[in-house]
Amino acid sequence: MARARALVRDRLDEALVAEAGPVAEAMRYATEGGKGLRGFLVLEGARLHGIEGARAAPAAAAVEAMHAYSLVHDDLPCMDDDDLRRGRPTVHRAWDEATAVLAGDALQALAFGLACETGCPAEARLALASTLARAAGIGGMVGGQAADIAAETASVPLALDAVTRLQGMKTGALLTWAAAAGARMAGADDAALARYGDALGLAFQIADDILDVEGDAGSLGKAVGKDAGAGKATFVSLLGLDAARARATSLVGEACAALDPYGAAADTLREAARFAASRRT
Amino acid sequence: MARARALVRDRLDEALVAEAGPVAEAMRYATEGGKGLRGFLVLEGARLHGIEGARAAPAAAAVEAMHAYSLVHDDLPCMDDDDLRRGRPTVHRAWDEATAVLAGDALQALAFGLACETGCPAEARLALASTLARAAGIGGMVGGQAADIAAETASVPLALDAVTRLQGMKTGALLTWAAAAGARMAGADDAALARYGDALGLAFQIADDILDVEGDAGSLGKAVGKDAGAGKATFVSLLGLDAARARATSLVGEACAALDPYGAAADTLREAARFAASRRT
Repeated sequence: MARARALVRDRLDEALVAEAGPVAEAMRYATEGGKGLRGFLVLEGARLHGIEGARAAPAAAAVEAMHAYSLVHDDLPCMDDDDLRRGRPTVHRAWDEATAVLAGDALQALAFGLACETGCPAEARLALASTLARAAGIGGMVGGQAADIAAETASVPLALDAVTRLQGMKTGALLTWAAAAGARMAGADDAALARYGDALGLAFQIADDILDVEGDAGSLGKAVGKDAGAGKATFVSLLGLDAARARATSLVGEACAALDPYGAAADTLREAARFAASRRT
Repeated sequence: MARARALVRDRLDEALVAEAGPVAEAMRYATEGGKGLRGFLVLEGARLHGIEGARAAPAAAAVEAMHAYSLVHDDLPCMDDDDLRRGRPTVHRAWDEATAVLAGDALQALAFGLACETGCPAEARLALASTLARAAGIGGMVGGQAADIAAETASVPLALDAVTRLQGMKTGALLTWAAAAGARMAGADDAALARYGDALGLAFQIADDILDVEGDAGSLGKAVGKDAGAGKATFVSLLGLDAARARATSLVGEACAALDPYGAAADTLREAARFAASRRT
């Protein structure tokens, strides 16, 4: 994952090298310090389809830029109002709200620009950009965030199927896009990688919910206990800690099984699924 | 322009028909009531290259969605803090700030999704999406808005060349993209249409500055007198009203001359340039 982070970092630095001013600085800042799981998934999926890192790097940088934008906007005072992200002040705290809105907006545009620059045929690049738009928009990430905010003010907490659907949009859509991107670059069937991404996405979110209960703000680099404080329905509040953990483990099994067509070549992705579900940060 | 608006409306309605909830409603609301100049430019440029309305409509809808998102975010309290837009409450006033941020975010994603669906070869669709990313991002629209905000707190007002560059990014980049899109769809040289778009964009902005001084909030559907109130350098404050008007007229001449290669077939676009520079709303 460190190598994936370095490839993504280089591609983002290259994209921003000519830009100056606070918004460009905030864009750089917002893309620093993450685990880089989404970019890693892109690069690994591409490798399985014979596409080396340099060609896949723009798509990996694209999904990390998209993810970074979503965090910057989710942290805004009018949204989750968070002061801390990846162990540092959030963008609107380090700069101001206008800079955070604009940096997020520009990161989203950058994500699409990068997706269009992936090293694969035009048809495949177009498929990357077009599916990224769906994963990021009202039918995906933004739709999930909207449902999440609506749930906070609803009188009845969400049931398990509604939380599953919401999280599938909010975090799942982009993770699945990342996992499936390599197959799309190659013009190959992306069903197996997409199934892997779906299961991994849900396992990832369950781990997130568990960390919000059990995690430590210091090592996580962000606030904890926010879900319970807000009376929010999560996998943990709905299933209990033990059953949530068991569900995550079973999803990791599903994710690994989805990779069967790739055999042992996909072991790094299987490792990533186990990491996503059991991570401590 | 009414026919262009109807085509764009249909395409946006189709894109949003399956979406429910306040953010989707706000997206629809934010794309209503504008002049539709950008979408019109796309459709006219496409017509000059033999591409009929139905095929070009997704790109026209894309640029209107992109423009609408930029207005929703620009109107936010942390940006220009406007209550009125197109004669109605701004999105954050009609709903709330979180809905406005999310609706803008989802409109931007939608814009890229639509650009990818334009009725032209994959290479051309890719060029549309890729150039749209540049026009919308830190090197274009967002960069211009960032420079505009920075100028507000600067100790010295901007000089004419800096204002020209800033406006070329803030409003010009997207207008030029719209004007040039038809040539890109056809895989043709877009230099003439891009020159037209550059001149029209500047004329359009000068008209905007004049309307901020001379216009009437009722018929404009937005606040006026904001530039002078903020001590902002505009074409009017730098040139004076008469010279600003003369500059706009000369830019309309440039815009019309750029269309020479298209002969009389481009008369509607020439008309649009005159309209953009002398509009009362």
